[in-house]
Amino acid sequence: MSTSLPRSFREEKDSLGFVQVPATAYYGAQTARAVENYPISGLRAHPQLIRAIGMVKRAAAEANLELGLIDETRARVIIEAANEVIDERWNDEFVVDVFQAGAGVSFHMNANEVIANRANEILGAPLGSYQHVHPNDHVNYGQSTNDVFPTAMRLATLLNLETLFPVLDALAATFRAKAGEFDGVMKSGRTHMQDAVPIRLGQEFAAYGLAITKALGNIAHAADSLRELGLGGSAVGTGINTHPNYRALAVDRLACISGQQLTPAEDMRWAMQSHACMAEVSGALRGLALEVIRISNDLRLLSSGPNTGFAEIHLPSLQPGSSIMPGKINPVIPELAAMVSFQVLGNDTAVAYAVQAGQLELNVMMPTMAYNVLQSITILAHMLHQFDVHCVAGITANAGRCQQYAESTVSLATALNPYIGYAKAAEIVKESVATGESIIAIARKQQLLSEEEIGEILDPKRMTEPQMPLEAAKHRDKSVG
Amino acid sequence: MSTSLPRSFREEKDSLGFVQVPATAYYGAQTARAVENYPISGLRAHPQLIRAIGMVKRAAAEANLELGLIDETRARVIIEAANEVIDERWNDEFVVDVFQAGAGVSFHMNANEVIANRANEILGAPLGSYQHVHPNDHVNYGQSTNDVFPTAMRLATLLNLETLFPVLDALAATFRAKAGEFDGVMKSGRTHMQDAVPIRLGQEFAAYGLAITKALGNIAHAADSLRELGLGGSAVGTGINTHPNYRALAVDRLACISGQQLTPAEDMRWAMQSHACMAEVSGALRGLALEVIRISNDLRLLSSGPNTGFAEIHLPSLQPGSSIMPGKINPVIPELAAMVSFQVLGNDTAVAYAVQAGQLELNVMMPTMAYNVLQSITILAHMLHQFDVHCVAGITANAGRCQQYAESTVSLATALNPYIGYAKAAEIVKESVATGESIIAIARKQQLLSEEEIGEILDPKRMTEPQMPLEAAKHRDKSVG
Amino acid sequence: MSTSLPRSFREEKDSLGFVQVPATAYYGAQTARAVENYPISGLRAHPQLIRAIGMVKRAAAEANLELGLIDETRARVIIEAANEVIDERWNDEFVVDVFQAGAGVSFHMNANEVIANRANEILGAPLGSYQHVHPNDHVNYGQSTNDVFPTAMRLATLLNLETLFPVLDALAATFRAKAGEFDGVMKSGRTHMQDAVPIRLGQEFAAYGLAITKALGNIAHAADSLRELGLGGSAVGTGINTHPNYRALAVDRLACISGQQLTPAEDMRWAMQSHACMAEVSGALRGLALEVIRISNDLRLLSSGPNTGFAEIHLPSLQPGSSIMPGKINPVIPELAAMVSFQVLGNDTAVAYAVQAGQLELNVMMPTMAYNVLQSITILAHMLHQFDVHCVAGITANAGRCQQYAESTVSLATALNPYIGYAKAAEIVKESVATGESIIAIARKQQLLSEEEIGEILDPKRMTEPQMPLEAAKHRDKSVG
Amino acid sequence: MSTSLPRSFREEKDSLGFVQVPATAYYGAQTARAVENYPISGLRAHPQLIRAIGMVKRAAAEANLELGLIDETRARVIIEAANEVIDERWNDEFVVDVFQAGAGVSFHMNANEVIANRANEILGAPLGSYQHVHPNDHVNYGQSTNDVFPTAMRLATLLNLETLFPVLDALAATFRAKAGEFDGVMKSGRTHMQDAVPIRLGQEFAAYGLAITKALGNIAHAADSLRELGLGGSAVGTGINTHPNYRALAVDRLACISGQQLTPAEDMRWAMQSHACMAEVSGALRGLALEVIRISNDLRLLSSGPNTGFAEIHLPSLQPGSSIMPGKINPVIPELAAMVSFQVLGNDTAVAYAVQAGQLELNVMMPTMAYNVLQSITILAHMLHQFDVHCVAGITANAGRCQQYAESTVSLATALNPYIGYAKAAEIVKESVATGESIIAIARKQQLLSEEEIGEILDPKRMTEPQMPLEAAKHRDKSVG
Repeated sequence: MSTSLPRSFREEKDSLGFVQVPATAYYGAQTARAVENYPISGLRAHPQLIRAIGMVKRAAAEANLELGLIDETRARVIIEAANEVIDERWNDEFVVDVFQAGAGVSFHMNANEVIANRANEILGAPLGSYQHVHPNDHVNYGQSTNDVFPTAMRLATLLNLETLFPVLDALAATFRAKAGEFDGVMKSGRTHMQDAVPIRLGQEFAAYGLAITKALGNIAHAADSLRELGLGGSAVGTGINTHPNYRALAVDRLACISGQQLTPAEDMRWAMQSHACMAEVSGALRGLALEVIRISNDLRLLSSGPNTGFAEIHLPSLQPGSSIMPGKINPVIPELAAMVSFQVLGNDTAVAYAVQAGQLELNVMMPTMAYNVLQSITILAHMLHQFDVHCVAGITANAGRCQQYAESTVSLATALNPYIGYAKAAEIVKESVATGESIIAIARKQQLLSEEEIGEILDPKRMTEPQMPLEAAKHRDKSVG
Repeated sequence: MSTSLPRSFREEKDSLGFVQVPATAYYGAQTARAVENYPISGLRAHPQLIRAIGMVKRAAAEANLELGLIDETRARVIIEAANEVIDERWNDEFVVDVFQAGAGVSFHMNANEVIANRANEILGAPLGSYQHVHPNDHVNYGQSTNDVFPTAMRLATLLNLETLFPVLDALAATFRAKAGEFDGVMKSGRTHMQDAVPIRLGQEFAAYGLAITKALGNIAHAADSLRELGLGGSAVGTGINTHPNYRALAVDRLACISGQQLTPAEDMRWAMQSHACMAEVSGALRGLALEVIRISNDLRLLSSGPNTGFAEIHLPSLQPGSSIMPGKINPVIPELAAMVSFQVLGNDTAVAYAVQAGQLELNVMMPTMAYNVLQSITILAHMLHQFDVHCVAGITANAGRCQQYAESTVSLATALNPYIGYAKAAEIVKESVATGESIIAIARKQQLLSEEEIGEILDPKRMTEPQMPLEAAKHRDKSVG
Repeated sequence: MSTSLPRSFREEKDSLGFVQVPATAYYGAQTARAVENYPISGLRAHPQLIRAIGMVKRAAAEANLELGLIDETRARVIIEAANEVIDERWNDEFVVDVFQAGAGVSFHMNANEVIANRANEILGAPLGSYQHVHPNDHVNYGQSTNDVFPTAMRLATLLNLETLFPVLDALAATFRAKAGEFDGVMKSGRTHMQDAVPIRLGQEFAAYGLAITKALGNIAHAADSLRELGLGGSAVGTGINTHPNYRALAVDRLACISGQQLTPAEDMRWAMQSHACMAEVSGALRGLALEVIRISNDLRLLSSGPNTGFAEIHLPSLQPGSSIMPGKINPVIPELAAMVSFQVLGNDTAVAYAVQAGQLELNVMMPTMAYNVLQSITILAHMLHQFDVHCVAGITANAGRCQQYAESTVSLATALNPYIGYAKAAEIVKESVATGESIIAIARKQQLLSEEEIGEILDPKRMTEPQMPLEAAKHRDKSVG
Repeated sequence: MSTSLPRSFREEKDSLGFVQVPATAYYGAQTARAVENYPISGLRAHPQLIRAIGMVKRAAAEANLELGLIDETRARVIIEAANEVIDERWNDEFVVDVFQAGAGVSFHMNANEVIANRANEILGAPLGSYQHVHPNDHVNYGQSTNDVFPTAMRLATLLNLETLFPVLDALAATFRAKAGEFDGVMKSGRTHMQDAVPIRLGQEFAAYGLAITKALGNIAHAADSLRELGLGGSAVGTGINTHPNYRALAVDRLACISGQQLTPAEDMRWAMQSHACMAEVSGALRGLALEVIRISNDLRLLSSGPNTGFAEIHLPSLQPGSSIMPGKINPVIPELAAMVSFQVLGNDTAVAYAVQAGQLELNVMMPTMAYNVLQSITILAHMLHQFDVHCVAGITANAGRCQQYAESTVSLATALNPYIGYAKAAEIVKESVATGESIIAIARKQQLLSEEEIGEILDPKRMTEPQMPLEAAKHRDKSVG
């Protein structure tokens, strides 16, 4: 993981001394130090985080230009270089590991250096010269890692969520479509994994769809907490070295550049001390993951078989399921769904630890928050797209099998409660379980109700919606006294 | 933990056979079975859960009465008994362990039995007779654990949150008051635990207050997800054995009884399958806990001392701090705050596991959700009240010490950036650290700026708000070309 | 939660001033302060923690007596009072909430005060007089909360584990007994919830038993990490105010008193800074919980039914399962098992947060560790006893249903691999799934093997152990070249 | 993330039909399906997992060759190809995402296909022909994903741990060396962040070293649980399609190949059902992470400053600390240490969810376990190496500052307890805090002890080890009666 390949280097200097930087690198001394200091995971910054910091740098430059704090020539090339970063042209120059210095100062300096070098290049100066544009004095004018990184982290999260939301909408729509398709499929409900009263397969799928829609709503609400930005707080949230108008201006520009609704934080100290918003978003993603685990487990149950399981539904066959058991087809996408969801839960734990670990003016544990939340969003979006298109959309019902369950569940007796009472109905169930005779047969045999009443009361379909009680019920239980 | 003390018993019968029930108990056979089955923790249901199920039972009785499904006499005594449950008169009769049957069926039957016995007693019949009012056929008419327990769990959570909200409001107000009180106290900021630029102590406290206010807002929003109720779904969310008008009516009555805004769930199957709302609320409580940990850690840092720590603030002395070190006073309330918060994080983990464990029509893991969320709310409310009244409200500042830090932080040099550039300013800091000379002294010695400029630029107070740059800055960096 | 009931009080004084203490209380001023300061949960110390601190106090007194640091009269009454604490005679006097001061100093002073008052009483002096025996100077001679509480916490955990180990042994034995009982019950294996090759029901249960045995081994190993004690480290692990021989002597006495193998920690600073041992034990309990969740889920799957599930086994009927669905019997004990296990996972999270939160000489978050670990052990022990006796021991097999699965699983075709190859076998499975014809019937029809070979190869029972391949296999795949 | 780049393809067929495979790929049809099915994270298998599965494939081939089940020509080329996999020659051909099919069947088939194609190539047959060696029939002879993947996962973990252990040994040694170096540095202890009794800086560092050594021991012990392998269990742990001698032989060969101590599992069903060992190892890594968080937090506290913090130690300067605050140096490596540790805690959560999610014969959630545990080990090993070499090894003490704390801590008064009693000593501390006078000065002024006694009793150094009490103590407390 070291940078020891033979290649030519240039020498740069920072406040700690001289550093070797690859000759063609757009990054500089501090990034090179970070590459040496953090050979941890081999994982680099999420593309959305790179885009977001590019947007912040551009917004700051625009604001400082307007305030007369950066001259037009410098501002123009900083903006041009930042635009290239936003367009992901320099992703390969963002070389710092996701596990790095607290507060993401190395990632931030990586951005300052890439933009400075590119800006100098545009102005005709060589890489590493910083002749016209300096990473700290110009690209970073009036900024600090402490307001820039939290802002970029929030913005990157918002940008990445834009990839998740349509996937969730589509998945919910697919569930709703299946709900319609399966609305006529009668089956037995199961509670506690035991025979319960009848339900329609479509009713189950409608509920899955609503669960996804609700999770989406929660994530969207949590995301709104990201829109309050501490940009302009600079070093400790007091705005040192910033113009009084900078803060509002910079956030306004950032909103324009990113197309996101953004506002200056009510309190810039708070926006630097507290990254509770990241735990909030992560928690909302957790909410989605918990639902996906549950639903995917249900799909695995319902599709269990072919001969030794419930076999109520079929999932699309995507690949041979076993290296030894020929012809086996497994519910691979629901399994994938669970595993990705477990990862999201794990990532959420890391985020929570990071969020509580702030000290005084700054919570420096942001790189962990950014890495985990952005990964969670990405793997959820990718997985749920597969889940939607390659699993849910292709589910078919085994209506015959379902109907058979609807007719055989011993909980059909529940419908008798209002007519014969719970205790008597329980006896019928006990007899049915003991003898194997159906509930209807026993009810008939015992002549508890008229044949017509039995036909109506014990019709599974009738049990899947609220119903006016028959007259028989009204007269059973004489009122007291 | 068994009920084997010698006392007299009555015999009751349920669908599994005969059961010994203490003669004077208002609960019945199924509760007695549960006492035998679940001698686990010795912990009983949270009082708010008992109140909530009383409210649900009353609301159901009122709705069924109005729909003509329960006669007036029975309905009247059920309502009367339920009111007594709501008033916590029968708390001691709720004897089932919090760790119990899935879905809370034992707790639910405990409620049905207590209300039935009390109702019969009101009508003059002996305990255990169920002569006039039957736990299943009347108290539970048209109801199932599967719609009642989730409803009671959500309502109990809402009711308990009403005890937390005012505590949070008060705490935030105390922080704001302290922010005002400490607004003039200059100190050094610290980021990464290292000298940073100056900040006012009041600014820190204002941010703490805002963090609490935001956490409160998040909890309140999450709580709204509890207001959609599946009551009326009965066994599997299809409303079997309910009147078509029951659902809307029962929820309406429940809203009146509880004083909470409540609505029938958009989809009754969903409200039974999914308890994501409990994870959402728990997650919002987690958000609060993470902030409280962070803030309490800060208070411990700031009050560290008296002679070997930061010693910027004093916390009220509540108790001798050590059994061996005389005169030691510890930050016991911030420590308590952290420990309660850790518990909330632990409880949240249990809730998440429970929420993902639903299967098909029902998630039976509700007792775990209810226990943990209700405990988290209660211990947070109690702890934060102590935190507010016995800690934050009594904090005093050591203004002299703070001022000394404000003047000695090496990050004062930051204010020089716009005038002499980051690199030059860094050299001054290096010299200061090496020699112990102050930043101002070095700046003076090097004659980098006029004495007047130094006086203005290096004034700590000026650094705690954004400022128009002095003319000196504008002329430093000649524009390119 | 306050102690404001009208009753008589005595006045005591500590270094902060005067305190009202209930006249008949054996605890004193500092405990009374703690009752006021921590009205949080209403939960009090675990009985094993009270016993353990009684043992520590006795051991310290014995050691100090032997070293001549406490005179015989005082030592004798301290030991007598400590013995009464060990015998749980004074549990009601331990009144401090489990959520309290950092490091458990309030619980510790509660113990010092109860023992001091009782010792004085034995010597004829009134409660609150501390005439002969002082809580700090005598009961706590040479001790600090910082070495006493960690020691008591470790010892209490060891003592409580003694209640869990036999339960685990018994449960594993029950699983093994069931494994023997079910050894002849052929069934289909299921992997990915899909038909797999045959297995014997007894094989499944044997594996469950081994999982429990392994979990027990892990817990016992983790418990050994508790045996290294920091007692004697006093305030910061340097042993200030202790005799050079005290540490070894006190730990030796504690081992005798408790019947546990205990040794002085290799490094007393470490034993105070680090409570990683509590996370280790909690982690081992987590390991058990994860297995119990898995096994209990399996039992719920295997017993699903009666008519709409796998129905391979029956669990004992413990209580009516539903308030609305008559005759329903639910797997309540496996559900309980999962819920208790979720709590253990939650408690483990709280412990982990507490363990990482140490600062410098001391981790003060011990009350959280003690509460959660002790609760986890207790609820696991109680639950697993019920699981063993009221669930596993009573499981019966539905051998007919199992056999039917064994014969119908499409994975029977796996046994054909060595004879006809994976690809050809997969085609047979596809045909079977499409047509409903059995694997044997298709094999026969296609005359792929002799009738005798088919009979032997496709015998489910033969598939449940490794077998020498038939000659047919050896000749199928001609060697290359 | 799709494979849609224009390039030439070959067509392969599996039991589901035809698949396009890149013409030069060594993988085959099932891998190509997996690439399409799982475009989730872009992350591929850990190199140690690839090596481990290469070893398993070789061991199986050797065992089957010896048992006469695979002919020598095929076995030879399978072994040769497997050796190349072990030597990481084909890492680029392992193209399946870490988030994939349950049980890792896609990763497993990737291995089977790469080895089969390479083996055919060695024998002169084209890629994709499977002319001589078939992925399922030969490379996978007598094997199943269900015994191979768990085996490879365990082995990969063991192999990867070999990279962590020496790092931990070295780190512990560095702490011990520092303990020696700092043994003479007197300082004040701090408990609850408040002045406590003196301690030597070296004592603190020795404890850090022991914490690491203990964590290493726990990990090594947990790793032993990985040594019991289910290899030979094939599809469901019954060993279907394996020779009775295969299991012992294959595991023996695997031990030789890997250089790891390995044994056949006591129960092959258990080794497939249960992956508790992965949670155990993950839990032990968590234990390490919790200690690293704590220690790194301590280092941040102790090095806080330079002018506004404790400033007891200096950490090596690795990079400029701030983009805005010139000359700032941050404790970047301790911050990195905390963030990597948070990730390990997050990964551990994902592992726990995966481990509890097994169903019946198989826990399919293994890819999640493997990914998280292997990543945790790798990032811990890399980070702790940096922590050791670039942080701990370079720490220097500010002995003067430390000594000043040692003399000024108000807890010096603790040493007076045995002579004047806790209550009197507490009064001295109160006076000291109120007046600023030192403890020694007050003791002197009050003439509580002789000057000589004071000199000896209040010598900070004397307080850092247990000491025989002076005569003065013995006579203070007259015995009772």
